[in-house]
Amino acid sequence: MQNLKIILNTNLKKKPDATTKLGFGKKFTDHMFTMIYKEGKGWHNAQIQPYSHIAFDPATTIFHYAQGIFEGLKAYKNEKDEILLFRPEENFKRLNASARRMCIPEIDEKFALQALSKLLEIEKDWIPTAEGTSLYIRPSIIATNVALGVHPSIEYLFFIILSPVGSYYKKGLAPIKLLVEDFYVRAAVGGTGAVKCIGNYGASLKVAENAIQHGCDQVLWLDANEHKYLEEVGSMNIFVVIDDTVITPALTGSILPGITRKSCIELLRASGYRVEERDISIEEVIDAQETGSLTEMFGSGTAAVVSPVGSFQYKYKEYTIGNGCMGQVAQFLYSVLTGMQYGKIEDKFNWSYNVTKKAKQEI
Amino acid sequence: MQNLKIILNTNLKKKPDATTKLGFGKKFTDHMFTMIYKEGKGWHNAQIQPYSHIAFDPATTIFHYAQGIFEGLKAYKNEKDEILLFRPEENFKRLNASARRMCIPEIDEKFALQALSKLLEIEKDWIPTAEGTSLYIRPSIIATNVALGVHPSIEYLFFIILSPVGSYYKKGLAPIKLLVEDFYVRAAVGGTGAVKCIGNYGASLKVAENAIQHGCDQVLWLDANEHKYLEEVGSMNIFVVIDDTVITPALTGSILPGITRKSCIELLRASGYRVEERDISIEEVIDAQETGSLTEMFGSGTAAVVSPVGSFQYKYKEYTIGNGCMGQVAQFLYSVLTGMQYGKIEDKFNWSYNVTKKAKQEI
Repeated sequence: MQNLKIILNTNLKKKPDATTKLGFGKKFTDHMFTMIYKEGKGWHNAQIQPYSHIAFDPATTIFHYAQGIFEGLKAYKNEKDEILLFRPEENFKRLNASARRMCIPEIDEKFALQALSKLLEIEKDWIPTAEGTSLYIRPSIIATNVALGVHPSIEYLFFIILSPVGSYYKKGLAPIKLLVEDFYVRAAVGGTGAVKCIGNYGASLKVAENAIQHGCDQVLWLDANEHKYLEEVGSMNIFVVIDDTVITPALTGSILPGITRKSCIELLRASGYRVEERDISIEEVIDAQETGSLTEMFGSGTAAVVSPVGSFQYKYKEYTIGNGCMGQVAQFLYSVLTGMQYGKIEDKFNWSYNVTKKAKQEI
Repeated sequence: MQNLKIILNTNLKKKPDATTKLGFGKKFTDHMFTMIYKEGKGWHNAQIQPYSHIAFDPATTIFHYAQGIFEGLKAYKNEKDEILLFRPEENFKRLNASARRMCIPEIDEKFALQALSKLLEIEKDWIPTAEGTSLYIRPSIIATNVALGVHPSIEYLFFIILSPVGSYYKKGLAPIKLLVEDFYVRAAVGGTGAVKCIGNYGASLKVAENAIQHGCDQVLWLDANEHKYLEEVGSMNIFVVIDDTVITPALTGSILPGITRKSCIELLRASGYRVEERDISIEEVIDAQETGSLTEMFGSGTAAVVSPVGSFQYKYKEYTIGNGCMGQVAQFLYSVLTGMQYGKIEDKFNWSYNVTKKAKQEI
């Protein structure tokens, strides 16, 4: 394992009251992980240090050309007070896939997970335990070159910060209403939609705001070419259930390969559900809705795990799915996935990563 | 005029030797302009201050969701030692257009130009005067909220930094070679290609690197839908000359409305050239090349002004345009535009903005 320097914070913050609303990504813990990259030297100076501001030259690449990528995952505590992660190897693997697309040097995935584990052990008391809460983990890599030429940076900063969070959506598990967007697009094939680069998110803000102005909670994105096929919902993957078949768009190059998406598919298949990964048009969804064969629609993602869709609006017409409540498939996925995440149910898939146990094994 | 506080730097840098290569965007002057935005308070605290690092919380929006926009323009000196800008009103107008697309609060364009003018007067001695050199101006607005929810920021920083520059391209006016990219795309209609947001640039890096690996200098982007129509070249607009007609792609939603592009069109039309803004396919270009009617191809942009294309590579075949040298139309545009920019020729269009004269008029 690469050398990991640890500088403990001597000035600890007051932890937020777990009984009050934590919100999402507003409070941060006492420490963060940082590591820097320099051309010719590679990744070095890995350290856990007090959470603090960082000084940047205003000509730093990240401010001008958005050469940055990130991940999002969560830490939970089980009843034995052990720290659990959910498929964290997948996050660091995807971080490296994003790195390749964005000309960012890859990191050592194993070392990153070890460093994160160490950080979590230090911040263990920050992991909230109330229902629906967790410690959100944000690994980020940003370009730190000081130069305005449009070229890949020769210097980078990798950091991991932690934030105790409640539900991502204010409404919790309440079904959301979608605006099916038929002009603006999230990503085209040949663009960056399949990786977690920061530019994808800034580009979506106006469209999300527009959805809210139309009385909706989120955007249902269609493909860039024909404005016909379902892509994603907000920043989640999308699933529909038609005639007892669970359908989700195939990963054809413009859709983020969600880890929750993958887990939903694997879990459903192992549980006997029929799952199809394929193109699904908004017309097919509306036809199924009109014949009554569309029984569910839901989003999947780290922040919300599973987010049921109660209704959607397309070309000024509104459609209510089923009785507008959370469906059976979404409920099943939510129960099993969160059950695994909090260590409450058996983990047949070996998806749970017990940070506390691994640390003990290493001693 | 909004209040503009000025804090002069007492620790001035040594100015770079004008006879050595300046490069592009590597050295910065002694001062910068900054202004901040807070929801409920609007834009405030406008000031010119010493160029310096700025401290950011690692959870700042700009690092995670790329909610940032920018502009690029240049300051020149004429023979009377006066400071000249080229159509700067257009840059601040476009900055506000970018702001609207990216959910960033608009700025007062007039005030921004006044503040920039004041900054330039202070940094006057940083404007290089050797041929092909200028003072590059980078106005940027970045989201500075500290929060990980994907929402428009409620706080922003607007800054303007200045950098003495030589030619953008190492080769100067030497013709460049393009790789016509038929898989990766720069932007789709409904995306952010028509504005100057930072995410557009990070997304292009891998493709530009790929072009270099193929022995080319830049990418010629095709449209996202059909990979058929010309869009842009690198980060410039593209022009072709076929049968004495100058053709450039129309602004249909995925192409940046370049100020140099607009100036080229206006100047050519006023000079009796036939100019068409329309879809132009790569097949049409190749057909014209094969019949000998394609006489020129060039890019236009602030950094290079006009950049002649000597050859291009498409589907593993290489095409040399004309004799591979700078063509007559590109030469005409380059001479007239740089002539106006440096105040060497008459400015019939009123495009030159004399900072020094305006300042005297205000007194």
